[in-house]
Amino acid sequence: MTSRMLLEYDGTAFAGWARQPGQRTVQAELERALCTVLREDALRMTVAGRTDAGVHAWGQVCSYEQEAVDPLRLNALLPADVAVLDCNPARDGFDARHDAVARTYCYRLLHRRARSVWLAGRAWWHGWELDREALKACALALPGTHDFSAFTPKDTYHTRFDRDIHAAGWREEGDLLEFWITADTFMRHMNRVLVGTMVEVATGRRSLEDFTVLLEGRPRADAGVTAPPQGLALASVAYA
Amino acid sequence: MTSRMLLEYDGTAFAGWARQPGQRTVQAELERALCTVLREDALRMTVAGRTDAGVHAWGQVCSYEQEAVDPLRLNALLPADVAVLDCNPARDGFDARHDAVARTYCYRLLHRRARSVWLAGRAWWHGWELDREALKACALALPGTHDFSAFTPKDTYHTRFDRDIHAAGWREEGDLLEFWITADTFMRHMNRVLVGTMVEVATGRRSLEDFTVLLEGRPRADAGVTAPPQGLALASVAYA
Repeated sequence: MTSRMLLEYDGTAFAGWARQPGQRTVQAELERALCTVLREDALRMTVAGRTDAGVHAWGQVCSYEQEAVDPLRLNALLPADVAVLDCNPARDGFDARHDAVARTYCYRLLHRRARSVWLAGRAWWHGWELDREALKACALALPGTHDFSAFTPKDTYHTRFDRDIHAAGWREEGDLLEFWITADTFMRHMNRVLVGTMVEVATGRRSLEDFTVLLEGRPRADAGVTAPPQGLALASVAYA
Repeated sequence: MTSRMLLEYDGTAFAGWARQPGQRTVQAELERALCTVLREDALRMTVAGRTDAGVHAWGQVCSYEQEAVDPLRLNALLPADVAVLDCNPARDGFDARHDAVARTYCYRLLHRRARSVWLAGRAWWHGWELDREALKACALALPGTHDFSAFTPKDTYHTRFDRDIHAAGWREEGDLLEFWITADTFMRHMNRVLVGTMVEVATGRRSLEDFTVLLEGRPRADAGVTAPPQGLALASVAYA
């Protein structure tokens, strides 16, 4: 019996999704609540996107081998920074990670002089000059298959560095700049290094060519800074 | 020398705008920061909307008799739940309260089964059935001048109960229902009792006629509950 769950969480106070001894993680909170409702001793969830510490999820998907439960029963047992939106029976053997065909992430950049009360911990605040057209030009180079070695830490567990970007682009809503990107899978820190490097182009610290050449597989040291985690959210996951 | 300030704050941890002994208030925080920057011992601000405990502001306006200061200097001295967006010289004698010609408030209602991580403390969560068309029908009765006695506590400092509503309406964005209302001035709790009463119509506990008759000046006891403060925000203030 397989079940599928849709959930959202504020990553601020979590050491990321994945269970780690002695750390507050989303996985540990969820597995604990689920075990209580199902009266199980242990239960293992599989997740579509293993988000890092501080990264949010608007539409995370996970799966587990047990019956589906009412989201309200789980939410009553979960802390305020995690909420289960849906929980339903899935086809036998459904795996939230391996069956996902695309993940969409959104990185939010607040581009204004004053900090924001509302987006504190939910966006990267940039008080300085930024060439918004340069950000858009960078994003235009992303769709297609590229070698993203430059955008993940050198010390890596990844074995394959090609990724196929289905779509990428910046959207402006007044002071809020959102970078939306969809791909089959992403590497660790990839979106944050992409954003950090694009922002270096937008502040004039590097050229557009300097960015696009990185897509051909360069060392990590050639790319820019890792943008802070609070701007990033796993927006949605697609299944065939 | 008069200055005008635009600011936003998250009302959750404040006992409202107005300075009160022994309480954490927005006014006290702002006056303290402003005194530090201006090297003054005391300074009195005037505000467009004296929001209650727990009520937010997206575009609050205040004025004071001293020079304008850089918002960034103030923000560095203010806690994370208040931010000054703008601070500029105003015409001599400008008064944020008396010169305001209209105030716009927004009340947010989250209408879905599961609670939200993102709107916790920023909306009123309704997990049960709600007739959205009934909410809209109620709002249609609001524009114009009415006696709002039924919508403010019986024990009151107000002396005049007529208010002129310039515009009012519900806007749907998926699960999020927003009630937008503009008037010259509002009475204490007025928007929250309006929302609380409209929701009673939308849940079938009272009829539309039962709501509209309240606009003719009825006792407070005839109206509905006071909706919780966290759904309400002072959205903007207009000056001639």
